[in-house]
Amino acid sequence: MNRHVVIRSIERADAAFIDGLGAAGTATVHEGIGRRGYAGPHIVARQRGVKIAGSAVTVSSHPGDNGMVHAAVSVCRPGDIVVVSHTAPSTHGGFGDLLATSLMAHGVRAFVTDAAVRDTADLNAMGFPVWSQYVSCQGAVKATPGSVNVPIRFGEAIVAPGDIVCCDDDGVVIVPRAEAAWAAAQARERLDKEAGTRARLEAKELGLDMYGLRDAQIAMGVEYLDTWSQ
Amino acid sequence: MNRHVVIRSIERADAAFIDGLGAAGTATVHEGIGRRGYAGPHIVARQRGVKIAGSAVTVSSHPGDNGMVHAAVSVCRPGDIVVVSHTAPSTHGGFGDLLATSLMAHGVRAFVTDAAVRDTADLNAMGFPVWSQYVSCQGAVKATPGSVNVPIRFGEAIVAPGDIVCCDDDGVVIVPRAEAAWAAAQARERLDKEAGTRARLEAKELGLDMYGLRDAQIAMGVEYLDTWSQ
Amino acid sequence: MNRHVVIRSIERADAAFIDGLGAAGTATVHEGIGRRGYAGPHIVARQRGVKIAGSAVTVSSHPGDNGMVHAAVSVCRPGDIVVVSHTAPSTHGGFGDLLATSLMAHGVRAFVTDAAVRDTADLNAMGFPVWSQYVSCQGAVKATPGSVNVPIRFGEAIVAPGDIVCCDDDGVVIVPRAEAAWAAAQARERLDKEAGTRARLEAKELGLDMYGLRDAQIAMGVEYLDTWSQ
Amino acid sequence: MNRHVVIRSIERADAAFIDGLGAAGTATVHEGIGRRGYAGPHIVARQRGVKIAGSAVTVSSHPGDNGMVHAAVSVCRPGDIVVVSHTAPSTHGGFGDLLATSLMAHGVRAFVTDAAVRDTADLNAMGFPVWSQYVSCQGAVKATPGSVNVPIRFGEAIVAPGDIVCCDDDGVVIVPRAEAAWAAAQARERLDKEAGTRARLEAKELGLDMYGLRDAQIAMGVEYLDTWSQ
Amino acid sequence: MNRHVVIRSIERADAAFIDGLGAAGTATVHEGIGRRGYAGPHIVARQRGVKIAGSAVTVSSHPGDNGMVHAAVSVCRPGDIVVVSHTAPSTHGGFGDLLATSLMAHGVRAFVTDAAVRDTADLNAMGFPVWSQYVSCQGAVKATPGSVNVPIRFGEAIVAPGDIVCCDDDGVVIVPRAEAAWAAAQARERLDKEAGTRARLEAKELGLDMYGLRDAQIAMGVEYLDTWSQ
Amino acid sequence: MNRHVVIRSIERADAAFIDGLGAAGTATVHEGIGRRGYAGPHIVARQRGVKIAGSAVTVSSHPGDNGMVHAAVSVCRPGDIVVVSHTAPSTHGGFGDLLATSLMAHGVRAFVTDAAVRDTADLNAMGFPVWSQYVSCQGAVKATPGSVNVPIRFGEAIVAPGDIVCCDDDGVVIVPRAEAAWAAAQARERLDKEAGTRARLEAKELGLDMYGLRDAQIAMGVEYLDTWSQ
Repeated sequence: MNRHVVIRSIERADAAFIDGLGAAGTATVHEGIGRRGYAGPHIVARQRGVKIAGSAVTVSSHPGDNGMVHAAVSVCRPGDIVVVSHTAPSTHGGFGDLLATSLMAHGVRAFVTDAAVRDTADLNAMGFPVWSQYVSCQGAVKATPGSVNVPIRFGEAIVAPGDIVCCDDDGVVIVPRAEAAWAAAQARERLDKEAGTRARLEAKELGLDMYGLRDAQIAMGVEYLDTWSQ
Repeated sequence: MNRHVVIRSIERADAAFIDGLGAAGTATVHEGIGRRGYAGPHIVARQRGVKIAGSAVTVSSHPGDNGMVHAAVSVCRPGDIVVVSHTAPSTHGGFGDLLATSLMAHGVRAFVTDAAVRDTADLNAMGFPVWSQYVSCQGAVKATPGSVNVPIRFGEAIVAPGDIVCCDDDGVVIVPRAEAAWAAAQARERLDKEAGTRARLEAKELGLDMYGLRDAQIAMGVEYLDTWSQ
Repeated sequence: MNRHVVIRSIERADAAFIDGLGAAGTATVHEGIGRRGYAGPHIVARQRGVKIAGSAVTVSSHPGDNGMVHAAVSVCRPGDIVVVSHTAPSTHGGFGDLLATSLMAHGVRAFVTDAAVRDTADLNAMGFPVWSQYVSCQGAVKATPGSVNVPIRFGEAIVAPGDIVCCDDDGVVIVPRAEAAWAAAQARERLDKEAGTRARLEAKELGLDMYGLRDAQIAMGVEYLDTWSQ
Repeated sequence: MNRHVVIRSIERADAAFIDGLGAAGTATVHEGIGRRGYAGPHIVARQRGVKIAGSAVTVSSHPGDNGMVHAAVSVCRPGDIVVVSHTAPSTHGGFGDLLATSLMAHGVRAFVTDAAVRDTADLNAMGFPVWSQYVSCQGAVKATPGSVNVPIRFGEAIVAPGDIVCCDDDGVVIVPRAEAAWAAAQARERLDKEAGTRARLEAKELGLDMYGLRDAQIAMGVEYLDTWSQ
Repeated sequence: MNRHVVIRSIERADAAFIDGLGAAGTATVHEGIGRRGYAGPHIVARQRGVKIAGSAVTVSSHPGDNGMVHAAVSVCRPGDIVVVSHTAPSTHGGFGDLLATSLMAHGVRAFVTDAAVRDTADLNAMGFPVWSQYVSCQGAVKATPGSVNVPIRFGEAIVAPGDIVCCDDDGVVIVPRAEAAWAAAQARERLDKEAGTRARLEAKELGLDMYGLRDAQIAMGVEYLDTWSQ
Repeated sequence: MNRHVVIRSIERADAAFIDGLGAAGTATVHEGIGRRGYAGPHIVARQRGVKIAGSAVTVSSHPGDNGMVHAAVSVCRPGDIVVVSHTAPSTHGGFGDLLATSLMAHGVRAFVTDAAVRDTADLNAMGFPVWSQYVSCQGAVKATPGSVNVPIRFGEAIVAPGDIVCCDDDGVVIVPRAEAAWAAAQARERLDKEAGTRARLEAKELGLDMYGLRDAQIAMGVEYLDTWSQ
């Protein structure tokens, strides 16, 4: 298959599950679904304190080109998040305040790219959240074909159109659309469990005891000693 | 030519053009002058929201040495920006609150380096803006010769003494001194044009139509499809 | 020696020296003790404006595992800082709000790691400071043995249990426990000296003259010229 | 889905297609199938001049652990290539001459990993080819679960069990199993075409003319000038 | 200036100087001309033992595009070396055996790029030497304009058309065309001097004495001690 | 302690143990002594097939300076290996054929640095082995003080003067001098054991069975399945 396509219509998950996953935060979601879908530490929040999820509109783009992002806008719906993957590493800032204006006008929640964003001061002022590998004032051309709404690799994750994109200060996690309900339940369960754990840790209980780690470690050969002696 | 020199007197651009370029921001300036002069995404603003331009006083320095920065102070004039390039990669924090105090006393607007800055909390408190590749508390020696006000490579850009250094949250862009007037006009023109574009995008017009991209993409072989079918 | 140990009892430096070093800041301490002990620019403050020091509780851990951090909590005392080194590069976020809750409950001042932290928004809200190489929502397992309170390499520094860990926006510096008093005195002396230097620089005096650099540079072959001439 | 599985039986492509793709080389295959499937320049051949393809037996492993590679051996068949992806970056040399001995005994053709290999001098002497991101003498543990023969991300590519793994001095390219016949034909066709192109280039014909680039570039605004004049 | 140009006719240095510089090797040339012009350690020889120099035909290219390399071929003359700089980081292998065939047919001596080369096994078999930042089987498009024979930044060096490009196993060094005669003389002188130094070092004389370093170091505070004592 | 010292006389391990460790190879030694002392994958052999060990003469140097390497030569004895650590990252090629000539004249076995080497073609021709982070033709100055034969951090390892430095194609491993006899015995034992393992693997026995991994993995939750079923 070596066609370039723009797919107009994709399936999306139920909004309640999407919002539940967004509110749970990436660490909880990632842990809840079996430690999958993390894009990697090089994808960085370019603002502080935003915690959000949306439906992936995916873009596969040639480096240094943002023409297909414009194509993506034409198929976005309110609640979507545009996720751009480049077919080779790129540092271009092919997304700035104009494209953000366009995405906001169409109800898109965030923009996520493995290249760069620019106009970061304006984006902050506008309140439009972005996650990217780089910040760069260097713009992109519109000269090469690509695809919209095909499965892509994004950082260390794989994203299909309509998957749930969870974003916060800890990075970006992808949840497969078909697992939305289960994932949201897993996240809720985990949040409940963590509340109890937190209370016990605040009361100075040790994780070492709580998780039965001391014995496990001694079984692995760890020696607990009062002071060092060879 | 293998001499080390400190040049005391350099030509500078007209202050009005410099300030116009500073206010336009790096993304606009970079685009306006034909996508040239960007130092690269590894040169990072160490504060938020500062947008400034000045005349380059250039420094070519041995790694781990800041003696020539002191030489540079002696030739700075109000409105200048000191730009330091090292002859090999360096992570030393050869610039901190003392040198910043000195530069502020001489009316210098900013400090830009491909190595590191230190005392970053103090620099923020003083309101002296810096752009650097690293932050590091490790200071530098004053043991080797270098040059001031010679042409240098800075990141991915080339800087001549007196060129205009534009800095903001998106990075650092260099404008050749001889092009100051033209560049300022280009930037203004671009800002005007973007205002119109922004209004149309806010009204939900698509960039895909506005820039005639849809037909161009179809001509490149991109297929617009309602849903996926092999 | 290929044993895994957890040492419960370590020597710590005098609290007054520790607090003095923390207040002096890493740049001053690093310079004061002869430019030693800096962990490197890849260890980054994950909050702004915190300046602190504490006694090192060291952890040597297998990548992707945080079981030994739980062991470390069990030997921490108020005023300590946990420093985690991995036996090979790791990007896992093996430290988040639950472990921070536990460390805070035991009076620990900060957490420092050459891997990642997660729940960074929560950590900021809790006011628990962290320094790390990465931010990542990806958690760790508890499957392999390691050691607590043995000498470790941390970034480009070496840390023994009980050494003083100094942290601020410029990074992390380690002071050997045995040198605490001397180091605190060096830092104080340096701060005093810098106050005088700062006043002279504010009065536009040149570092070039103050440090006798002009003559030294001329002796190294640097030519001071009014304008360029080949 | 958060299960760990070892799948014993997978579909493989026809050997003739696999061998044809191996002989064509990665550059030709990558180009032939529409510039897809390249793992990236960080995956490097650890010997010179080997050009090979095989059926992917995939491994998803925790960093610093090679237990699942042993599980993979148990499901390998002659002609396979083992491809190991780690769930987070890892530099461990979890593959050396012993595992190579085991793979050779089972007819496996090569080993490909996004972490490291060790015993590289022995591997060369044995004639067992490897592609890796790192070389490291540091071994791995066998303490955490993972999976064999599930779809994985490998570098910048996606690999399903049974896909064709093409390896040579230029890196690693993945061809989906279902496209084996088509891809082999594309590669052959491209090799034929390149033979003709090569002959014309040897006869000093210009690519500029052959590909009609001169006019295309002039249309894009490129000016062909005899000498520079502003 | 935001024009894209291909300049057909450039000045070149005298062949005798070029060949003398090539034979001297990059380390000698770099040292001889005052430690300037080194492209940096990321530009790596993709074969062993080749030592060569030629006249620079420069290319400024958009990432992922090699159309302008074809334009460069049309202006090359025997003895030239093509040097390609990208306007942003690129890992594409936009140069392989076909373009090498074309360059060889026109008498070009080598190809140097800050992106990647491919078909490296073929290039070695053909005996056409290349220096690059990456090896990658991923090809490039021919969709965007660029320039040939304009001044470029290449790695950490600046290259004007017709400058001398020196290449060997230690990397790439640029000598300005106007300095060719002087540089060749400097290199010869240095080679003569090193022959004498080598003989003395072989006779076990110490560099410490030969260069007068011992006293200089003692003056800088270095203490020569028989054994360690605090 | 902020003194710079050159220590003339250091303790060395018994030659038989050193040579035994050299012959065993880094992977075996590293494993044998409990997976310690590895310098990291960024320290790379600059020739193929050399396997050697020697006594560490350590150098702590300022970046871009090689004056202290000359000091080190003056205290070297036959069988030594010079190990240079820089106080901050450096890419300078401060070691080439002249220093190699000097080291060979004094019986030194190898040179190991976290910066660069140059004249690599000559070094290969001379048969003097080197391990380094970079190759660079860029030389160093002799302007700043440093130390010889003090404990240093080298990559991810710690080296004391007289420790055993083991080097081969897999990298560099440090063995503490006091553990030489024990380490040599551990390595020998491991080599013997591996011979038996190798024979069994050649006979197609599975590591999965040999190491009891199958049951251990099943206990961790790994499911062995014939084919995939959700």
